[in-house]
Amino acid sequence: MPSEIPAVVVDRLPHYLRALRILLDDGVEVISSRELGEALGATPAQIRKDLSYFGRFGKQGRGYDVAALLSDLTRILGLEYAWPVVLVGVGRLGRAIITYPGLTPEGFHVRAAFDANPRIVGSDVDSVHVRPTSEMESYIRSEGIDIAIIATPGDVAQDVVNRLVASGIRGILNYAPMTPHVPRGVTVRTIDPVQALQTMTFYLRDSTGQDDAATRRKRGRRSNSRR
Amino acid sequence: MPSEIPAVVVDRLPHYLRALRILLDDGVEVISSRELGEALGATPAQIRKDLSYFGRFGKQGRGYDVAALLSDLTRILGLEYAWPVVLVGVGRLGRAIITYPGLTPEGFHVRAAFDANPRIVGSDVDSVHVRPTSEMESYIRSEGIDIAIIATPGDVAQDVVNRLVASGIRGILNYAPMTPHVPRGVTVRTIDPVQALQTMTFYLRDSTGQDDAATRRKRGRRSNSRR
Repeated sequence: MPSEIPAVVVDRLPHYLRALRILLDDGVEVISSRELGEALGATPAQIRKDLSYFGRFGKQGRGYDVAALLSDLTRILGLEYAWPVVLVGVGRLGRAIITYPGLTPEGFHVRAAFDANPRIVGSDVDSVHVRPTSEMESYIRSEGIDIAIIATPGDVAQDVVNRLVASGIRGILNYAPMTPHVPRGVTVRTIDPVQALQTMTFYLRDSTGQDDAATRRKRGRRSNSRR
Repeated sequence: MPSEIPAVVVDRLPHYLRALRILLDDGVEVISSRELGEALGATPAQIRKDLSYFGRFGKQGRGYDVAALLSDLTRILGLEYAWPVVLVGVGRLGRAIITYPGLTPEGFHVRAAFDANPRIVGSDVDSVHVRPTSEMESYIRSEGIDIAIIATPGDVAQDVVNRLVASGIRGILNYAPMTPHVPRGVTVRTIDPVQALQTMTFYLRDSTGQDDAATRRKRGRRSNSRR
């Protein structure tokens, strides 16, 4: 099934989940594609098309059963199971990820963490024990872990990616500022605030007219240009 | 120009920047679309097509001038200027964003932070002073800030978005677990690790065959299911 479903549709499904949970908490039992569209900022036609990929059709004049749709989408996304996750790189960012309270309730539990720095190895962050990266491969294989989070510096990240993939990791959430190269069959999502900001300024630049003098004064030329 | 350029092309430009900087640091002066494609994990045809949107054509048999292309893309993305940014929500995540060393070298400087909690207001995080959210609108207007980062809880984020937009903010980097509704002309990027993980498990679930007993045992049904 997945190969037939456009990635943009898959990317929207978590938003459906979130909206449907809120509706269910609010006691809403049935919702029309128009109402669901309003909650998601999409047109009713878009909603109907998205859900038709999964064989879900709202009854004409009645709408979608909120609980049933939520249950279906949860299963479709593979979220009725808890997914154990390993984290590689226990610096400031890695610690923030381990202590982030939003992952476990969503079914993602950081089971082990790995770092190359002997001063960090052996410590505990919350209840997660930090192991040496030399144990990474054997841990992943013996525990059958599918998902890894990378929070290392950019220059070592590709080497980490290669080792993770060779050990059986098939999903990588990458926080390192680089673009991982992976073989077919491995899914990568990169979390990159700088990239997000840089694609934003493309649109801001244009609508302000970057070359007028007032804008230049306001922002100032970059002294610390990476160029 | 921007309205004619597909968003997926804009999204790729930061990767070009990063690759070109590495090439320049390595002393590479000219690069072919094939070599650039290898660095970026794209086909030469893709590279040529992307860059043609910006009027950049590599000379046949010679390739692209690395420094000139880097300079052009920097200007196209509006990154020859430093962009002052405000942050709203100074909890654990907000502090991590302020102290993240990767933003300033890229031209994004957190100039002020705002929080609703009186116990946090008045404190300093690194060199950034935390102000009450009641001062948010006047600060943004008087300083002419274009970009805001939101790191508040999800349930207050839309209200913050509305106030930011009314004050003149046109670009929002959203870390709150919700989908902001904004008027046309405002650009939003949401950083959402849970969404990233949830779209990943869609692909993992399928290729393992989630329903076999071994997989179920390994992962365990979610006890803390949010449905």
